[in-house]
Amino acid sequence: MPLKSRIEMAIAQSIARGQGQAAPPKLAAALDYAVAPGGARIRPTICLSVALACGDDMPELSNAAAAALELIHCASLVHDDLPCFDDADIRRGKPSVHRAYSEPLALLTGDSLIIMAFDTLARAGDAEARRALELVRILSNRSGMPNGICAGQGWESEEMVDLSAYHCAKTGALFIAATQMGAVAAGQEAEPWYELGARIGEAFQVADDLRDALYDEATLGKPAGQDDLHDRPNAVASLGVDGAIQRLKDILGGAIASIPSCPGEAALAQMVTSYAEKVTPVAPATSPVRQRA
Amino acid sequence: MPLKSRIEMAIAQSIARGQGQAAPPKLAAALDYAVAPGGARIRPTICLSVALACGDDMPELSNAAAAALELIHCASLVHDDLPCFDDADIRRGKPSVHRAYSEPLALLTGDSLIIMAFDTLARAGDAEARRALELVRILSNRSGMPNGICAGQGWESEEMVDLSAYHCAKTGALFIAATQMGAVAAGQEAEPWYELGARIGEAFQVADDLRDALYDEATLGKPAGQDDLHDRPNAVASLGVDGAIQRLKDILGGAIASIPSCPGEAALAQMVTSYAEKVTPVAPATSPVRQRA
Repeated sequence: MPLKSRIEMAIAQSIARGQGQAAPPKLAAALDYAVAPGGARIRPTICLSVALACGDDMPELSNAAAAALELIHCASLVHDDLPCFDDADIRRGKPSVHRAYSEPLALLTGDSLIIMAFDTLARAGDAEARRALELVRILSNRSGMPNGICAGQGWESEEMVDLSAYHCAKTGALFIAATQMGAVAAGQEAEPWYELGARIGEAFQVADDLRDALYDEATLGKPAGQDDLHDRPNAVASLGVDGAIQRLKDILGGAIASIPSCPGEAALAQMVTSYAEKVTPVAPATSPVRQRA
Repeated sequence: MPLKSRIEMAIAQSIARGQGQAAPPKLAAALDYAVAPGGARIRPTICLSVALACGDDMPELSNAAAAALELIHCASLVHDDLPCFDDADIRRGKPSVHRAYSEPLALLTGDSLIIMAFDTLARAGDAEARRALELVRILSNRSGMPNGICAGQGWESEEMVDLSAYHCAKTGALFIAATQMGAVAAGQEAEPWYELGARIGEAFQVADDLRDALYDEATLGKPAGQDDLHDRPNAVASLGVDGAIQRLKDILGGAIASIPSCPGEAALAQMVTSYAEKVTPVAPATSPVRQRA
């Protein structure tokens, strides 16, 4: 089965379970609205690619890991879009969850998706409780405090920002979780897979900064120029556009070099290369490049 | 060690881990602010009481279960207090988290505490991964959708409310989790402990409705009359004060009768009785009883 089908089926299965029985109908509908149709599903794709490279001997568990990652990611998008953060009206080309359903329901949707991620791991772990429990540990470590995406967001409320901790937590965390969870779901150690995840995360952050600076709202499917607007630290502001593109290439080269020895090493390197091509933005000739004030 | 010390130590240990290393300082401080000084710690006390009644052969795991329950409960309080829900300025006699720290930090505090609950279970599970994974499953089931406290809150956004599902999820869920997690942490089956948790939850809801109707803000440590204000279904509105107090007694009698056979059955019945005395409100003679419009 293609990776994309595995990912979509696993997510749909978790959402359907969350909508079951006597659930309040609007919140049930909002759960689905928040995760479908999805974006590129980058984190679960990386997770399953690593699992396959490691032999993928328990596909049910790696599917659960992939779904859990995307559920946490979607939860963070729903909460980030709320008025007290980005106050974003659109996401993935449609109204954000709080716009479509209300602010209380968006808050609950995010909470429910976070919890659903852990539920998904726990339910898939019957055959291998030890692996499943390590997946819970990795995901919680990279989602919460002090190392996860919550910590990353938390830095945005500080006057003095530890930039390295900020970037690592804000964007890097779920990529580190993606590579490590793929390996652990397939029975391997987590630690050797840290660097690949961290480097992919760094690359993603630089690519995101470039897209935010170069693209308009229609192309992005969400408001553009947000880094500049909210005065957030970003690679384009510190390196310029050309410098940021060069940095992106360097990081991805390092990512490929960091792949641990495993049966599917070559295929995994290929995946990272095609990912690199996909995320590197091409500046439209007519697009105004925003300058930092 | 007294239950209270075990609970406070386990919570403090989880919070300290969440504040570790390179955490953003304000969010780190808000984590502690949200959980301490605590309320009655009712859910973790029930959890540990059941674990003790079942032999408590892995105290580290039952301590983790108790802490995880309280972390989820505190997270729900932080999110419930936000402007888009109850818009509460005070909680446990001090400013609510969003008042003390800001709305973004309160949102992140809730998210971080939810995640920390699962992290706490995962970290305590090395010696018994299967039990720990079932604890994750029970807690996620009773926190999220469709059966948990998120579902309970979700009902408040519906025009047509399934009252039984609403009450079971809104307040009952974490009490069911408390009895079942106590049993599972001590190596017992979860299912026989459902009824005790459900009945304690029902009793708590009726007692809470009574307190909300009878007490003022200073006594409650949070705004009074909220059920009436938000037109929420409640026992005082449907049964009157005397009817609600009788109902509370009936439920607690049923709770004691439902306790499964176990070595500590008598002590557990005693705990429920003293809990009943603690939660039954005494209407002050001078207190105006709010009438439903």
